Amino acid sequence: MRVNITIAVDAMGGDYGPEVTVPAVLDLLDRDHGVSVILVGVPGRIEAVLRRSQTVLSARLQILAATEVVAMDEPPAQALKNKKDSSMRVAINLVRDGGAACCVSAGNTGALMATARFVLKMMPGIERPAIATTLPTINGHVYVLDLGANVDCNAEHLYQFGIMGSILASAVDGKERPSVGLLNIGHEAIKGSEVIKQAAELLRNSPINFHGNVEGDDIYRGTVDVVVCDGFVGNVVLKTSEGLAWMMVQIIRREFSKNLVSRLAALIALPVLNRFRRHMDPRQYNGASLLGLKGLVIKSHGGADAYAFRHALQYAASEVRSNVLGRIEASVMQLEPSI
Amino acid sequence: MRVNITIAVDAMGGDYGPEVTVPAVLDLLDRDHGVSVILVGVPGRIEAVLRRSQTVLSARLQILAATEVVAMDEPPAQALKNKKDSSMRVAINLVRDGGAACCVSAGNTGALMATARFVLKMMPGIERPAIATTLPTINGHVYVLDLGANVDCNAEHLYQFGIMGSILASAVDGKERPSVGLLNIGHEAIKGSEVIKQAAELLRNSPINFHGNVEGDDIYRGTVDVVVCDGFVGNVVLKTSEGLAWMMVQIIRREFSKNLVSRLAALIALPVLNRFRRHMDPRQYNGASLLGLKGLVIKSHGGADAYAFRHALQYAASEVRSNVLGRIEASVMQLEPSI
Repeated sequence: MRVNITIAVDAMGGDYGPEVTVPAVLDLLDRDHGVSVILVGVPGRIEAVLRRSQTVLSARLQILAATEVVAMDEPPAQALKNKKDSSMRVAINLVRDGGAACCVSAGNTGALMATARFVLKMMPGIERPAIATTLPTINGHVYVLDLGANVDCNAEHLYQFGIMGSILASAVDGKERPSVGLLNIGHEAIKGSEVIKQAAELLRNSPINFHGNVEGDDIYRGTVDVVVCDGFVGNVVLKTSEGLAWMMVQIIRREFSKNLVSRLAALIALPVLNRFRRHMDPRQYNGASLLGLKGLVIKSHGGADAYAFRHALQYAASEVRSNVLGRIEASVMQLEPSI
Repeated sequence: MRVNITIAVDAMGGDYGPEVTVPAVLDLLDRDHGVSVILVGVPGRIEAVLRRSQTVLSARLQILAATEVVAMDEPPAQALKNKKDSSMRVAINLVRDGGAACCVSAGNTGALMATARFVLKMMPGIERPAIATTLPTINGHVYVLDLGANVDCNAEHLYQFGIMGSILASAVDGKERPSVGLLNIGHEAIKGSEVIKQAAELLRNSPINFHGNVEGDDIYRGTVDVVVCDGFVGNVVLKTSEGLAWMMVQIIRREFSKNLVSRLAALIALPVLNRFRRHMDPRQYNGASLLGLKGLVIKSHGGADAYAFRHALQYAASEVRSNVLGRIEASVMQLEPSI
């Protein structure tokens, strides 16, 4: 590994704080020797977890003190105004000041969004940040954005999400012209709201590889590489999928533990069922990019465990290594006249 | 069975027309001796299928001729204006004129909606019809509406969907005060768009049992009996769920056919896997109600096979028997001052 990457980690964020973030960081450092981490947060609480695993600080693992913590249910505006020394804010400051190549947080989404936007600023031509993540498909994965940063979007916003999503997929996966679909309630161009129709028109006339409208099932059928929608719809897609996958796994479990015969069948089918569970495990898809900012910020699920949080850290490292930020910036510059 | 119910069936609707609708009707008539059916459509094509199964017409099975067929991709306004003798239109006319207690169609959703609205009219106080269906949950099922009739909804519309959904769940399932949730991107009252916040306010002050905001995963967790959303979001929920369930079943199949050992495991696990597949089979949830009209119309999935279409017919019979229409009408009358 030639280049050393530094990641700023909001150690206090998420439902479990350092109990999850610190073990995940230690696991990452073991696996990826090209990464250094700055743990940002209340030193006493971080050190307590480090001590338990008998880890000492090194060039690759440092602590940066922040005295405050943004609560998971704190109103974003309030966090932005009153908590200038929060672990989240200090971690984002590190990205702005060049002390870290990106920041990873499992904290309050709204506060992270507002703080990142305030500290890092938007790229020229991009009006709103978008949250993008990958979901599994039958033959790989798909990028979906926005996932909740913007509840009301106009056609321009959806168009900008399409551009950013296309660049993200191309940068991370090395696809030359990733296909982009607009989530709608029918494949035909006459379907959907006025906003959707206008967004489709803008995307059709853009330099990206616009596939046209897609429907909800196309997400998992792998019809396109990128699916664009507003934040309300994207969040519902994500949560609905979580709920359905959870239910299906519960039902399989219930069916297999019904009686002696089915329990025996489960024993024999165990390796296969485990492979299935691993494939469907949402934890390995943890890590969403906040796109459109002049700096790289990755959001982890608030309820992430150490395994899931480590995946968000790995995703962050891969975004840095594929220079997602620089590529989006370059493309946005090129497109700006048309935006 | 005391009362005999007559169902008008749009025999030409759906991707397969009489090839699917007629066998489904014959299956229903065998199973439910309290039902009569009027097959509406092109007599020659219906008779061809009847002849193949050596069925003769009777008091319980009649044909009503309609010369035209609405195409699956025909613009609704055009179908409404130009095809006054379509199987869809004639079947709905039967409901208006009292010749049938309800109508079932697998035809073009937009055309069905527009025609039903034109022929049957809306109930007083209800501005827009809604499409409602049930989805499976971990412990039963949930009603979700709207599923695509309305892409843009205001707070009043969502409020009316809540009222109608509550009455539907109470009538069909006999629940006294079904709980109603408003689909949002967070449980907190501060989350979501202005429309959602206003709708929540209206529902909170209504006589129904309003649970508050729910998120996508709550649909499958069985958190509430009814989930309310606009038609765009509802359609995305439905299609996304279809896609994810399809993908999960494909992956299970793939994993179990990987090698000799897993194929053996599949053989042993087969009865359990079949139970699982039956539980998840979307065909048994086929049949969506068009609510808010002065008449009962049930929409079947366009791609339904005979098994799925028979389920839509059964759902229609259960709605007639539980007097869903009369109950919604009575409740709407009571509520009207507040609406």
